Amino acid sequence: MTFRNFPMVPRVVFGCGSFNQLGEIIAPKRVNNNSPFIFLVDDVFQSSPFAERIPLEHRDKIIFINADTEPKTSQVDELRDGIKQEFDELPSGIIGIGGGTLMDLAKAVAIMLANPGSSVDYQGWDLVKNPAVYHVGIPTISGTGAEVSRTTVLTGPEKKLGINSDYTPFDQVVLDPDLCAGVPVNQWFYTGMDCYIHCIESLTGTYLNAFSQSYGEKSLDLCNDVFCNGTLPEEESREKLMMASWHGGMSIAYSQVGVAHAMSYGLSYLLGTRHGVGNCIVFDHLEEFYPEGVKQFKEMVDRHGVEIPGGLCADLNDAEFDTMINVSMGMVPLWENALGKDWKQVITPRKLRNMYEKM
Amino acid sequence: MTFRNFPMVPRVVFGCGSFNQLGEIIAPKRVNNNSPFIFLVDDVFQSSPFAERIPLEHRDKIIFINADTEPKTSQVDELRDGIKQEFDELPSGIIGIGGGTLMDLAKAVAIMLANPGSSVDYQGWDLVKNPAVYHVGIPTISGTGAEVSRTTVLTGPEKKLGINSDYTPFDQVVLDPDLCAGVPVNQWFYTGMDCYIHCIESLTGTYLNAFSQSYGEKSLDLCNDVFCNGTLPEEESREKLMMASWHGGMSIAYSQVGVAHAMSYGLSYLLGTRHGVGNCIVFDHLEEFYPEGVKQFKEMVDRHGVEIPGGLCADLNDAEFDTMINVSMGMVPLWENALGKDWKQVITPRKLRNMYEKM
Repeated sequence: MTFRNFPMVPRVVFGCGSFNQLGEIIAPKRVNNNSPFIFLVDDVFQSSPFAERIPLEHRDKIIFINADTEPKTSQVDELRDGIKQEFDELPSGIIGIGGGTLMDLAKAVAIMLANPGSSVDYQGWDLVKNPAVYHVGIPTISGTGAEVSRTTVLTGPEKKLGINSDYTPFDQVVLDPDLCAGVPVNQWFYTGMDCYIHCIESLTGTYLNAFSQSYGEKSLDLCNDVFCNGTLPEEESREKLMMASWHGGMSIAYSQVGVAHAMSYGLSYLLGTRHGVGNCIVFDHLEEFYPEGVKQFKEMVDRHGVEIPGGLCADLNDAEFDTMINVSMGMVPLWENALGKDWKQVITPRKLRNMYEKM
Repeated sequence: MTFRNFPMVPRVVFGCGSFNQLGEIIAPKRVNNNSPFIFLVDDVFQSSPFAERIPLEHRDKIIFINADTEPKTSQVDELRDGIKQEFDELPSGIIGIGGGTLMDLAKAVAIMLANPGSSVDYQGWDLVKNPAVYHVGIPTISGTGAEVSRTTVLTGPEKKLGINSDYTPFDQVVLDPDLCAGVPVNQWFYTGMDCYIHCIESLTGTYLNAFSQSYGEKSLDLCNDVFCNGTLPEEESREKLMMASWHGGMSIAYSQVGVAHAMSYGLSYLLGTRHGVGNCIVFDHLEEFYPEGVKQFKEMVDRHGVEIPGGLCADLNDAEFDTMINVSMGMVPLWENALGKDWKQVITPRKLRNMYEKM
């Protein structure tokens, strides 16, 4: 058996207000005054006072990005091409500010600035040859674990799949819980549940080991504090959810996600369903696989008065179902983790069709 | 307020048997065939079959080191000088295999191979100017957290103090729980309690934040599993204690240790008391500061039938007491963390003398 030599984020700063240190943190990484820092920022901040706190110098540039859709390979390639066209020199760094979409775009653009071809060519495992440009992750919503993971999940023309590589993780992460103030309740819940769900998938999976288990258990404890305990002060709740996301991401270092993610990838690929809510839609129907987790999930949904959308698959035709089923069944490591090597004895196209029809 | 931009170990492999991957892991770091890897190895392995598993190539060298005494600045300087004398080129890397002493020696020697003068010059905070030589930590006993920390604690002619710097953490850690098989019970307990005690100190300290808290709580949970629950299979117990040590080390990233460490530094400095047992000796008398932690500690001592030495200070003279008290009171951040800015209103030389006299 070979164990992965896992690349951890080598620098992390944590604290309410730590975003104010960003200028100082990145300054030593500036190659020269013509080599800019490019800030990829969720466009919810476009007309917010927060945007003025971004420390621009010299030729640095902010690119606001709408995160209503999942990140795409074409989008990554266009961002890369645009940056290369505008600047004579490679950027000093790429700084992603936002949720999972912005985290993943920042990681992918940093990789593609240093590697030829299209990002499509690198979807998979360990296909990246050259180290990425310096890249920094600054989450403004908690739960995806993208700030600490070794992947960047992109939807391409043929598949939704991550660029999994040792060059993918951020060189620096800034964890400032204050940046998560003001997230709408539904989004807060869906994204937080991404964390809850991947912990359940990791902790009940066949790939689990003591390393991932310890991170997953702590992440789940923190999710429970945040989502099952209504009495936490807001600031403490934000801090704990940020740490839950961090540990949840680490918990997948040696394990894998499972059934919810495998099926939610199908939904996202066909319908563009956002990752957080897609996981919730699927997980709500997975009592068979995760009885305790789903029971608690339903309690949390009720407690926070959140609506889980339904009826997404009501009008789909056979070809569309087949597309979803193919994407989902292609996630072999996820199914293996969830159900073992013989997963195909449980999961058939017909079974998945039946399950999708309820969603 | 400024938050530390914490350097994490950038690469970690975890798993029973993962030590077998060491050769493959370090191979890409070899500068050339004349630039050796130097393995600093606890001499308990000198005539063990384990030593034959160390992957030597070209001019690589094992230096066996007795870890019965705490690591010293003079020892670091001598190791550095010896390596420089024997080899024309700087080593490709320093690999520490053992407990906290070997971890700290490997970190310190790696720093001193790249920095002029004596290691004494770098005891303190952020005094190291040049990046250390590549260094790898492979713990064979769990609890110190030295595998993940930003310090290397050395006893010098005038003080016992760490080289705290961004260049101190290992570039690579190999966590192979199998390597901890066969540790004698007393040593297992004293070293494990180092972890337990610094979690208590961190979690009850005034420096605590949500980052450190989440790591500290998980570490403490794992310590409880290992030391308060007699039913764990040995392998699981080793795995959990290794993760407890890891998370415990991380918990101090943003916090500090406290009264037990401050006083135990005094014992070590004067009497050469080993760090783990020294912490136990002190902590056993700290009901006033850590009532719950000390209660549980005493239960664990009883449960495992471990003896905590006493009477160390019975024959000391006034000058010796004063030395211990001075060393201990010099650990200002530890006292501040434990008792706040006004700690000197509680901790006086007389008070410390009274406490030491009981030990």
